[in-house]
Amino acid sequence: MPLSTNQVPHLQTALTGPLLELEEHLLNHQADIECWFRKQFKETPAPFYASVDLRNAGYKLAPVDTNLFPAGFNNLHPDLRPLAIQAAQSAVTQACPIADGVLLIPENHTRNQFYLENLAVLQEILIAAGYEVHIGSLNPEITERTEIELPSGKTLVLRPLEKQGDRVGVNDFFPCAVLLNNDLSSGRPEILENIDQTLLPPLDLGWADRFKTEHFDHYKNVSNEFSKMVDIDPWLINPMSMQCGPVDFKEREGLECLAGAVNTVLQETQRYYDQHDIACKPFAIVKSDSGTYGMAIMSVDTPEDVLNLNRKQRNKMSSAKEGLVAKQMLVQEGVYTHETINDAVAEPVVYMIHNQVVGGFYRVHTGKTATDNLNSPGMHFESLSFATSCVMPDQTQAPDASPNRFYAYGVVARLALLAAAREIADAKREAANEKKAAS
Amino acid sequence: MPLSTNQVPHLQTALTGPLLELEEHLLNHQADIECWFRKQFKETPAPFYASVDLRNAGYKLAPVDTNLFPAGFNNLHPDLRPLAIQAAQSAVTQACPIADGVLLIPENHTRNQFYLENLAVLQEILIAAGYEVHIGSLNPEITERTEIELPSGKTLVLRPLEKQGDRVGVNDFFPCAVLLNNDLSSGRPEILENIDQTLLPPLDLGWADRFKTEHFDHYKNVSNEFSKMVDIDPWLINPMSMQCGPVDFKEREGLECLAGAVNTVLQETQRYYDQHDIACKPFAIVKSDSGTYGMAIMSVDTPEDVLNLNRKQRNKMSSAKEGLVAKQMLVQEGVYTHETINDAVAEPVVYMIHNQVVGGFYRVHTGKTATDNLNSPGMHFESLSFATSCVMPDQTQAPDASPNRFYAYGVVARLALLAAAREIADAKREAANEKKAAS
Repeated sequence: MPLSTNQVPHLQTALTGPLLELEEHLLNHQADIECWFRKQFKETPAPFYASVDLRNAGYKLAPVDTNLFPAGFNNLHPDLRPLAIQAAQSAVTQACPIADGVLLIPENHTRNQFYLENLAVLQEILIAAGYEVHIGSLNPEITERTEIELPSGKTLVLRPLEKQGDRVGVNDFFPCAVLLNNDLSSGRPEILENIDQTLLPPLDLGWADRFKTEHFDHYKNVSNEFSKMVDIDPWLINPMSMQCGPVDFKEREGLECLAGAVNTVLQETQRYYDQHDIACKPFAIVKSDSGTYGMAIMSVDTPEDVLNLNRKQRNKMSSAKEGLVAKQMLVQEGVYTHETINDAVAEPVVYMIHNQVVGGFYRVHTGKTATDNLNSPGMHFESLSFATSCVMPDQTQAPDASPNRFYAYGVVARLALLAAAREIADAKREAANEKKAAS
Repeated sequence: MPLSTNQVPHLQTALTGPLLELEEHLLNHQADIECWFRKQFKETPAPFYASVDLRNAGYKLAPVDTNLFPAGFNNLHPDLRPLAIQAAQSAVTQACPIADGVLLIPENHTRNQFYLENLAVLQEILIAAGYEVHIGSLNPEITERTEIELPSGKTLVLRPLEKQGDRVGVNDFFPCAVLLNNDLSSGRPEILENIDQTLLPPLDLGWADRFKTEHFDHYKNVSNEFSKMVDIDPWLINPMSMQCGPVDFKEREGLECLAGAVNTVLQETQRYYDQHDIACKPFAIVKSDSGTYGMAIMSVDTPEDVLNLNRKQRNKMSSAKEGLVAKQMLVQEGVYTHETINDAVAEPVVYMIHNQVVGGFYRVHTGKTATDNLNSPGMHFESLSFATSCVMPDQTQAPDASPNRFYAYGVVARLALLAAAREIADAKREAANEKKAAS
C-alpha cells in the first residue's frame, strides 16, 4: 500500500506513560520553551542547517544522529517550503548580512538521483529566499559546466569549483557565503582551507574533524538544562553515550575496552528499565565516532557481541565512507523505534534551517526491526513527509495528538541543534586559539 | 454555496494581457525581487505588521489601503500559521532583542466577536513565538480582569491598562515591547505618550496623525524604483492619488477643489485607458485622508458626483470612526475588482508580519459591484483564506496560475509595506527633530 501524506505512524507500545508526561510538560511550557530557545540561539548562533534523526520508544524520545550537512530536502512536504525559505533568509543574513549570492558545494556523487533532487530543492529554497545560487563541485570528474536532468524534470547545473586568490567560486561568482552540503568525510579539501569567505558550517565541523561524542556531551548538558526548566527527567530525552578507542576491528585491538563500554551502557539502561518498569531488553549501538553514511555501525545485546565478530563484520566496522578508517567508537544506549506504519518501522527525521524547524519526514523501512539502524548504506526507505509543521502544538488536543507529538519532535531536534551550535562555537574558539598560538 | 478553501476566484475580464506580463516579469526576476526587498528592509525596517487591501482589475494590480493595525488574523489559513509564528519572532527581536513578553493593546470594542477572534489568534501567534502575552485595554469599561468567551471556544482575558512611572502594563507585567492593535482613530491616548517602552508601531502612525496621501506618495516612489528593476510600466501597480483639502462636506466647503481633483484623476485614467485599449469606464474613490473604518468613502464617475451630494451623503462623508471629522481628502484612481467567486466580488487582503508575507484572504461580498468599496462599516463579508502562501511562485506553471498570482499579490503588498516602512522612518525622524528643537 503506498504511503499517503495524511498517515501518521502509530506508536505501538503500551509503555507510553513517560512520553505522554513529556509531551504534557512541553505543551504546558510552550512559551517558556520558545523563549529559552530564542535566548540560547542568541547566545550561540544556530548552524546554517541540520537534520536530526530521532527515535521514539514511547517511553523515551531521543536524537541518535545530528547531521550538519543535511540531504533530503526533497523529502520535505512542499506545503512547508515557505518556512524553509523564510528561515534561509535569516540563516544567510546571520552569516553574511550583505550577501547577494550563495555558492553551494555538494557531495561528489553525481549519479545518486535522490541526492541530486535534494540539491535541486536546496537551490530552489535559496533562490526563493532571494539569492543567486550556483553549484561548485569538488568532484574531479566535473571539469566543465555539466547539466543533469533529474527524474522530477528539474535540471541541475554543476560547475567545477575554482579558486581565485583566497576565494572559491565558479565563473565570476565568488560570493561571501559558501554553503557546504558535503560532509567532508574524505578530509578537508585543500581548496577550502583559509578562504576569505564565510564557510557554512566551518571546515572544522566536517566529519574529518568532528566527533559524535563531543556532540552528545554537549547534548547531555543541553538536555539537563532544558529538563530542569520544564521539570522532566532528562533520561527521557538523552541517550547514554560513551566514547571508546582507539579500536582497530581488523587487528582486534581495543575490543575489550569496547565490550566494557557496551556492558556499562547495557547495565545502566537495565537499571533504569527496572526502576521504571520498562519491560524491554536493553541494547546498545556501536558506531564510528566520526561521520559516515552508517557503514560502521552495529546493534548489540551483550558485550560478547563485540568480542565475537566474524571477519565480515569486522571488515564492515573498519570501513567507512570514502575510506575513512573507524578509530574512535561511540557506544550509545539503543533507543527502540516503536513507531510503525503499515507494520513497517518509521524513524522521524527533523530538518532545521537557522534556528527554525522547517519540516521533517519518516524513514519508513519494511525490512527492518525496531532495533536496527534505519540509515544503512544503499538501504531503500520510503519517506513519509510530515504534513504539518513541528511548531504548532494544539493545546485543545491530547498530549499525544499528532500536532503535539510533532511539536515534541521539533523541540528535541532543536535541543540537538543547540548542542551542534555549541560544538561549532567550540571549534571556532579552538581555531582562533590555534591561529593566535601560531602567530 | 459555502466557500471552500480550495477555491480560487476567477479573474473575469478579457483585459488580462498587462497583468500576465506583470506576473511574467515578477517570475523572471524572483531572486532579484527578493534580494531587493531584503536590502530595502535592511535599510528601512519593516513595520511590526500590516495588511494591504489589493484590487485586481486584470490590467492593473494595486494596493488601495495599507493598515498598520491589522485585524483579521483569524481569517488566515491555519496551515500558514507557522509562517506567522516564525515572522513574529523576527519582528519582536528586531524591536526588542531581549524581550520576553509582549503587551497587546487592542481596539476598544468588546462586543465585536470577529475582532476578538482576531485578537485571540494574534495572542496565540505571539505565544507560539515564545513570548508571554497579556492584553491591556484602553477601554474605560474594562476596570478589572475580564474574561470573554468566544464563539470558537477560546477565552480572551482583558485587563485594564495601567501606568507605573513611564511604563504601561497590566498587573506586574510591563514588558519592553508594546504592540498596538488599535488604530488610534480617536486620537493619541495620553497614557501612551512618552513611555519608556518600544511602542509598535510608533504613536505617530496612528490614524490621528497619519495621512493616506503620504503613504501613497511613498508608494509611488517605491513602485517606480521597483518597476525600473523588473522593467514594467509602474502604472500597472500604482493607483493615481491626490490630496485635496480642507473639505467640509456639511458646510459644502472645498467641494470645487475636490471636483477638480476627481476630474484630473478621471481624465488621466481615461487617457491611459485610451492609449492601452482598456475598454473600461474610469472611476475615482474619494475618501478621508485619515484612517477610519471606511465610513467617509465614496465611488464617483464624474466630478459632478461630489458637487451634487445630498444631505445624507454629505453627513456620511463628514463622519468617521469615533467621531474624527474628515478634513483632508484623498482622491484615488478607482481600480476595478475583476476577481469573482460564485458571482460575488472578491478583494484580496495580504497579511504581513515583519518583512514576511504570512497569508491572506479574499473579502467576498455578494451584494457589491466591482467598483464598490468592500470594506464598508458593518458590512458582512465571507472570508476565503489563501490556502497557499504568497512566497512560492511556480516557474513551471503559467504566469497566471494561482501560486504565481498569489506571488504577485505578495510582491505588490510588500511594496506597500515598504512604503509604510518609509512613512514610519519619516515619522521617527520628525519626532526626533521636534524633540531636538524643544530641548
